[in-house]
Amino acid sequence: MPAEKSYLFSIEFAVRDYECDIQGIVNNANYLHYLEHARHEFLISRGISFSGLHAEGLDVIITRIEIDYKYPLRSRDLFVVRLNLRREGNIRVVFDQHIFRLPDEKPIVKASVVAVATKNGKPVAPGNLISRLGLND
Amino acid sequence: MPAEKSYLFSIEFAVRDYECDIQGIVNNANYLHYLEHARHEFLISRGISFSGLHAEGLDVIITRIEIDYKYPLRSRDLFVVRLNLRREGNIRVVFDQHIFRLPDEKPIVKASVVAVATKNGKPVAPGNLISRLGLND
Amino acid sequence: MPAEKSYLFSIEFAVRDYECDIQGIVNNANYLHYLEHARHEFLISRGISFSGLHAEGLDVIITRIEIDYKYPLRSRDLFVVRLNLRREGNIRVVFDQHIFRLPDEKPIVKASVVAVATKNGKPVAPGNLISRLGLND
Amino acid sequence: MPAEKSYLFSIEFAVRDYECDIQGIVNNANYLHYLEHARHEFLISRGISFSGLHAEGLDVIITRIEIDYKYPLRSRDLFVVRLNLRREGNIRVVFDQHIFRLPDEKPIVKASVVAVATKNGKPVAPGNLISRLGLND
Repeated sequence: MPAEKSYLFSIEFAVRDYECDIQGIVNNANYLHYLEHARHEFLISRGISFSGLHAEGLDVIITRIEIDYKYPLRSRDLFVVRLNLRREGNIRVVFDQHIFRLPDEKPIVKASVVAVATKNGKPVAPGNLISRLGLND
Repeated sequence: MPAEKSYLFSIEFAVRDYECDIQGIVNNANYLHYLEHARHEFLISRGISFSGLHAEGLDVIITRIEIDYKYPLRSRDLFVVRLNLRREGNIRVVFDQHIFRLPDEKPIVKASVVAVATKNGKPVAPGNLISRLGLND
Repeated sequence: MPAEKSYLFSIEFAVRDYECDIQGIVNNANYLHYLEHARHEFLISRGISFSGLHAEGLDVIITRIEIDYKYPLRSRDLFVVRLNLRREGNIRVVFDQHIFRLPDEKPIVKASVVAVATKNGKPVAPGNLISRLGLND
Repeated sequence: MPAEKSYLFSIEFAVRDYECDIQGIVNNANYLHYLEHARHEFLISRGISFSGLHAEGLDVIITRIEIDYKYPLRSRDLFVVRLNLRREGNIRVVFDQHIFRLPDEKPIVKASVVAVATKNGKPVAPGNLISRLGLND
């Protein structure tokens, strides 16, 4: 069972009926929505907004997602999205995101989401974004 | 059975599995997506784009939708969205939109969608937009 | 400003970025998702589940929605969906649902959602469902 | 430029406005919808339906997706989803799915989607599903 404290950020959700498909389980695509919402809430918790970054000329784009579906969520399940962050090379930042059902902590999804900062459409070193996110530069 | 020629515009779709919910039928909200896509395609067929209107300082917003759900669509059903247009007073334009299953023409949805043109957030008379849409001024 | 106590049920949400469209505002269809989620949570708060009703041979379907869009929600806005209920004739139950932005209570959406109980696909009087929902029979 | 004939299956789409987000580009999660719809259409083109498989006691579930986002699609872009299939070990079938913008064949998305056949929730060898999908057993 994961120690909550080993993650940088956590956010809880409940499955809404409209997120489930014919099989009565959450549709695969909706997990990407959950993961995205968790990342955005994390950034905001660090005082970083997309519009603010954009005003600085910086856009953060997702270039790759690896996602393992371990067990499906069903209507009205409670769950938590937990998140860590690491650098990969000079350019990439990787969000490691895990979804667990609550309260039994059953692993649901394990994902790695690769982000790149861009300026005028070109990848750039993320610069002080890294320290603002709580990573060592 | 409706005469196709009594409508200003028609567009055909097929239900995608991810648009269906636990009951195996298209979720109520997705019909609004179908209706919106049909309206946008209609506008474009008349040479009108939202970005073009916006550049002219004009934004078209939806202020009211009335929708009757007559029969549900299911996975892989084919259907057509048909559309007419009428003025209501000086300000409002109403899209009358009907969805029929294909090929049996079973009525699925009947909707009235009220749109208003706005300039700087204030409703304005739609002006030549009306004639461009094929209505008498 | 609405007195919270004049409603049968209320539930709060926050707008998620993926619910917004190109204009930066919540897409019209997503309000139907919010309204549906609020109705389902209300039913469950009364001890009524769709699967339970279905096991009793009863299905509740939406036959009509009227929705007035008064002001758009934007990314990260907080809002509340409030709900009342009334009978209309022998067959129909109408959910009156209002969305207000928080904390300023700005009116966002006003909707009437007509529901009908069905047995084997035929409308039936909702019977004791009415009293279970807190309405007088 | 890819030779269309080197793929088992192809299906064309157009981006709908409601699939785009605040940045004016298709939201990351919607590509999973496109990929899923393409897989389902492929299966049906081979005479295989989920409900038919389910009736045989076989459920096909997605256990992993790797997706590279190379370039974003925008409102009204035309695109094609192309698909190949390969076995991985005794249990897994991998869909290699590529999205290209049309007509310029610009690469948009490259994805590998791992599927497993299950019986009563346990992974099983896909058996004659393989030959029905056009793979060598």
